[in-house]
Formats: sequence, C-alpha cells, structure tokens
Amino acid sequence: MPPSPTPRLKPVAKRRRFSVIMAGGVGTRFWPWSRKRTPKQLLALASERTMLEDTAARVRGLVPDENIIVVTAKHTRAAVAESLPWLPRASILCEPVGRNTAPCIGWAALEVAAREPDGVMVVLAADHVIEPKGEFHRALRTAFSFADSGDYLTTFGVPAREPSTGYGYIKAGRALDGPHGAFSVEAFIEKPSPAKARRYVKDGKYYWNSGMFAWKASTILEEFATHLPELARNLERMDGRRRNGVVPQRVVDSVYPGLDAVSIDYGIMEKSGRVAVLPAAFEWSDIGSWEAVAELWPSDEAGNRSRDPLLVVDAADNVVASNGKPVALLGVEGLVVVDCGDALLVCRRERCQDVRKLVEEAADRGLDKLL
Amino acid sequence: MPPSPTPRLKPVAKRRRFSVIMAGGVGTRFWPWSRKRTPKQLLALASERTMLEDTAARVRGLVPDENIIVVTAKHTRAAVAESLPWLPRASILCEPVGRNTAPCIGWAALEVAAREPDGVMVVLAADHVIEPKGEFHRALRTAFSFADSGDYLTTFGVPAREPSTGYGYIKAGRALDGPHGAFSVEAFIEKPSPAKARRYVKDGKYYWNSGMFAWKASTILEEFATHLPELARNLERMDGRRRNGVVPQRVVDSVYPGLDAVSIDYGIMEKSGRVAVLPAAFEWSDIGSWEAVAELWPSDEAGNRSRDPLLVVDAADNVVASNGKPVALLGVEGLVVVDCGDALLVCRRERCQDVRKLVEEAADRGLDKLL
Repeated sequence: MPPSPTPRLKPVAKRRRFSVIMAGGVGTRFWPWSRKRTPKQLLALASERTMLEDTAARVRGLVPDENIIVVTAKHTRAAVAESLPWLPRASILCEPVGRNTAPCIGWAALEVAAREPDGVMVVLAADHVIEPKGEFHRALRTAFSFADSGDYLTTFGVPAREPSTGYGYIKAGRALDGPHGAFSVEAFIEKPSPAKARRYVKDGKYYWNSGMFAWKASTILEEFATHLPELARNLERMDGRRRNGVVPQRVVDSVYPGLDAVSIDYGIMEKSGRVAVLPAAFEWSDIGSWEAVAELWPSDEAGNRSRDPLLVVDAADNVVASNGKPVALLGVEGLVVVDCGDALLVCRRERCQDVRKLVEEAADRGLDKLL
Repeated sequence: MPPSPTPRLKPVAKRRRFSVIMAGGVGTRFWPWSRKRTPKQLLALASERTMLEDTAARVRGLVPDENIIVVTAKHTRAAVAESLPWLPRASILCEPVGRNTAPCIGWAALEVAAREPDGVMVVLAADHVIEPKGEFHRALRTAFSFADSGDYLTTFGVPAREPSTGYGYIKAGRALDGPHGAFSVEAFIEKPSPAKARRYVKDGKYYWNSGMFAWKASTILEEFATHLPELARNLERMDGRRRNGVVPQRVVDSVYPGLDAVSIDYGIMEKSGRVAVLPAAFEWSDIGSWEAVAELWPSDEAGNRSRDPLLVVDAADNVVASNGKPVALLGVEGLVVVDCGDALLVCRRERCQDVRKLVEEAADRGLDKLL
C-alpha cells in the first residue's frame, strides 16, 4: 500500500494569532544577577540578549508584533520596555502583585478577546530556552491550527529525554482525530521521584510539562467561568473598565490584590475535560539554575564552562559568569562563581538550588540593595 | 647574692638614627590585588593603610622623618609618594631594575653616610607585620645602641614560635659581652624540612631570620668593600656623581642595570665574621600569602576570615578579600576568594603559594593589564 499522504493543516490567519508571554517570574536562583528589578527573564543568560528578547524573537514573524502581549510585574515595566522597544505600551500588562498564573492568563485572554474575538493564543514563558526556531514555528503552527479546530486546551509536551526530577510530567492518553498528532491527557503528574522518572522515560507515553499552552481566547474564558468563576467575574469586571482600549493601571492596582493566587495547572488544566497534549519536536529547557544554564556555554577541556575569560591552573568542572571580567581558578573543582558589580557568589555546583537561601539571608539582614 | 642591676644602654642621638625601608618587592602571591604598579607593600593587607605606611609609621618618632629612606622600583615612585606624602622626594631612591638586596642596601648606606658620616641605620622590609609597636621600639633602641657600640652586622632574630618551613633560620652562638643581649651567629640556615624545623624549635638556639638589620653605615660599607668589591666600586662611583645632595636619576639608570644581582645574605651576611643576632621580643610575620594575611582578619564562628560583608550558608574556613563588596558563600570550604575591579581569584587555600602560576599564565597569554 502506498503511504497515506500527510493531511494538510488548516492554517489560522495571521491577524488571529496571538502570543502571550508570561514574564512575571522572580528567579531568585539566579542571584546575584537576578534581583527584584532584573529577574531571570530580563538577564542575558542563554545568549547575548535577555531571555525575554529571545522569547519574543522566537515568535516574531509567526505572530504579528502588535499581537504579542507581555504580562509582567509593575516594577519591571521599564526593563521590559527597554528589552522590547518595538512593543506597544498597551501590550505590556503590569501586575501590581504576583497572583500566580491563572489571573495572569485570564487577564491576557480578555485582552486578546477584546482585540480579536476569534483570537487564538499561545502562552509562553519568558525564561525558557527552545531550539531550533524552525521546529518551534512548526509546532506553533500546528498548535494554532489544532486549537482553532476545536475547543481543546492544548499543552506542549516535551518528549522526556532523561529522567529529570525537576519537571512535572504529562501522561498522554488516546490519539485524537485529525492531522495534528495530539493526544488526550490521561494525567498531570507533579515532579516525580527518580525511580518514577526513570519509569516514565522508559514507558514512552510521558512528556515533560513545558508550561506552554495554546487555545482560543473564547475557550479558555469559558473554562475560567466554569472552574474559577469568582476569578473570572473579578477579571471581567476589571476588563469592563477599559478606556480607549486599555484597562487603566489604577483599576488593575485596585482589583489585582484581591484576586485568588492560583496556578492555571491546578485551577483549570487538572480539572477540565478538554485538555490535550501536543508532542513537541523542539529542544526545550526551563534552565532552573546556574548549573543548567551553563550547559549552554562553551567549555574548556577540563569542563570549566563560561562565556568570560578564564585563567585556569589545575581547575575542572567549574561554572563562571562574570560579565566579561577575567576570573582565575586555581586548584578548584565543581564550583559556581558568579560576579556582578555589587555582589559575588561562590557555591558548590550541587548546591545551586539553594541560592535562594542566600537571598533569604540577605533579606533577613536587611541588605535590601542585594534583593 | 642580690640580682645584678640591668646595665643601661648607651642611646644613639636621634639625628644619627636612620631607617632604610626596602620597598622593591614584586609580590605576585597577592595577585590579583598585587600588580607591577601596586606590589604587596603598596596594598592595605594588614590594616586600613598600605603595608609601607604601616612600616613607616612604626619607626616614626624613633627615627626623624627626614632620616627615613625608602628604596623602591622606579615605576612605583608615584605610589610610594602618595602613600607617604610627608616623605621628601630625595628620600625615595628609585631602582630602574631590581638587583636583589645587596645593591639596594649598599646604595642606601652611601645615602646615609653622605647625610651623616656617623649614621646608624636599621634596614626594614616594607611588607612585614610587626606587633606591638612599643616592643618594636625597644628592640630598635637596643639595636641602634648595639650597632653603634661596635662593628657588628646585627640581624633581628625572631624566636621561632612554630616549625615554619617558610622562613630561614639563624643559629645563635655564644652570648656577646655588654647589656644588649646579642649573640654571635653560628649559622644561617635556608628554609628547612619540617623535621629539621621541629628540631630547631625544640632546641631553643634557633631564630627566624627576619631579614631586618642594624649597623653603622661605615661598618656595612667596609663589608661591601671586603666581600663585594666590584659592587662597592660601582656604587661609590654612582654616589660620587651627586648634584645638590642627590644622585640624578639618569645616573642611577645608567649604572644600575650593570650591577650584580646578589642578596645581602649571600653576598655579605654569610661571609662576614662580624655578624650578631639580637633576639626580638615582638611578634613578626612576613605574611607570604593570602592565607597568612587572613590570620590578621576577623573570623566568624565557622572560620571564614574576611574584612568584607559575607553572606554564609553552610560554608567554613574560607578567606575572602573583596574591597568591601558583599560575597556570598554557599556550601564551600577552604577557599581563597579575592576580588578587585578587573579580576577575580578563586583558589584552594593550600594552593595559595601557586598564585604566581596564574600570573605567569596571564603573562604567557599577553594579558598585560592583569600584570
């Protein structure tokens, strides 16, 4: 039998494509570079550009510039505007306080719907690394088309390359009809034990939960009304006070603190019956620590990873970030060394996840300049 | 029998007292703080002042300001003048190239003799730590008196507190007549093995060789003529070209490169029959490494030594110098961390002595800014 021809996807018109970039993270694990005013997504960790710039650059072309919406914290508005000078001011939604992902996504969905009632949106994190861009665009096109073809809440599932215990997992169910290659979702699974993670990788039905989504604005708003009705009402009331196409910041500031802090995963994804997973063919990492991001940097023969000039004598497997300043390593192994103008970090690689403890210590001691 | 009364020392008139401070060292072991233009003696390692300032302050009062002479490298003249603004320009002798200690001391002796034919001089290193000042002054008074009373080349011997293998030793011989408590020298001993060092400390007749001396200018010049006649002739010829009480720098520059590079220890002290050792009652250290200087700095309960603000989580026995910048230590032990504006050093404490290897590496790679 001849192979069946690959069915063609029905594309979504460009003007109906939207991208919401969640850029509200705090990122204490990248201290001393990450601070309240320069969280992880505003640092140049993976390339010469900030992670937010990389994220926006990754969707530009596929999504019109005017359909890219960034949700961020109020105190990082200036840094976001500086990072993305082409972004209209009205496309930066500023949260006066963090309220987890559901309020952020609900607000953004209302913004999309206000601009384009038939809008289809992908929700991206501002601090992930995705390669290559071509594969990512192919996945986004598929996701736009799939989300538009039905009423699914689509998650991007990344084939688990290794038994990571730092990611949540998605267990895929039955293959869904149509040309998109999507599956129903059998379960969302929290960060597993090493043994379970190994089992998941072997099984083949499990994907890393990338935290990226695609859906019609109208679909997700229906789900908000069903599963988070109070939050939906509050957001709609806020959205109803638009003036000249924009919700005034003082309105946001008065409403936001009263919203429930709930994640989109817990509040909707784990409760909805419309959830689907679309396997992703791109490489993906949420680079959760200095050690993880250093995997993207050049290494010398001894495994010292850095983008900065190193002087090395009998030193191996160190990670160095110094903003261009020469760093000399003598007789040391397995360290993370991070320098910036007003603070210096030296830690063991295996303690990277505990950098937040130093930030707590700085806060306890009232060293506000370092926060 | 009643105890014999302590015999009184015959003091040396103040105007005849001179102090020569040798400030020509390179000090690569304190890289990245130490550089060609800011060698160890021009760094604030032991206190808030440069080691040279501390050294000069330690003799001021006992020796008239105008009788303090500093011998240094030509390229550090400006830094010396800045460190000691009260020092007359004519009292800074500038070597165009380093030629070890004998030429430096010979030239300084000629300078003293030119100013005061009956001058008595102590020779001090600019980069040692000595405490307390009162005890040091008592020792200097004794040394001036002893040197003036005879033709001895006097060395200060520091009672060996511990079996250090980093210092040379002096073996004392018979007690010399008079009230000064001096001994003849039986032998100068190079840096010993640990076993030998332990034997020396037990024995009680051995002293650390401090590298500090006292003698009449006329006595040491006679010894130069006897043991280093060619060097003596060259220096006298140079000194003979004084104009207005000063040897012009161009004369020094033409003579100095042709001088033999020889140490005062090898060239004179080990050959002369006039050598005596005066036991010192002060605490002394030549602080030869970051680890050694940190002994002078405050320590937290976990043994982290620093004068700078530290954030510590599960870290112990580290040494940090950062010019006031906050340094965070997480899960690390036994490191030396030294920061400055344009370079950063991270090394294991036990590798401190090898910091010079990094300087060589920087030189090999043409990183002249770091030298």
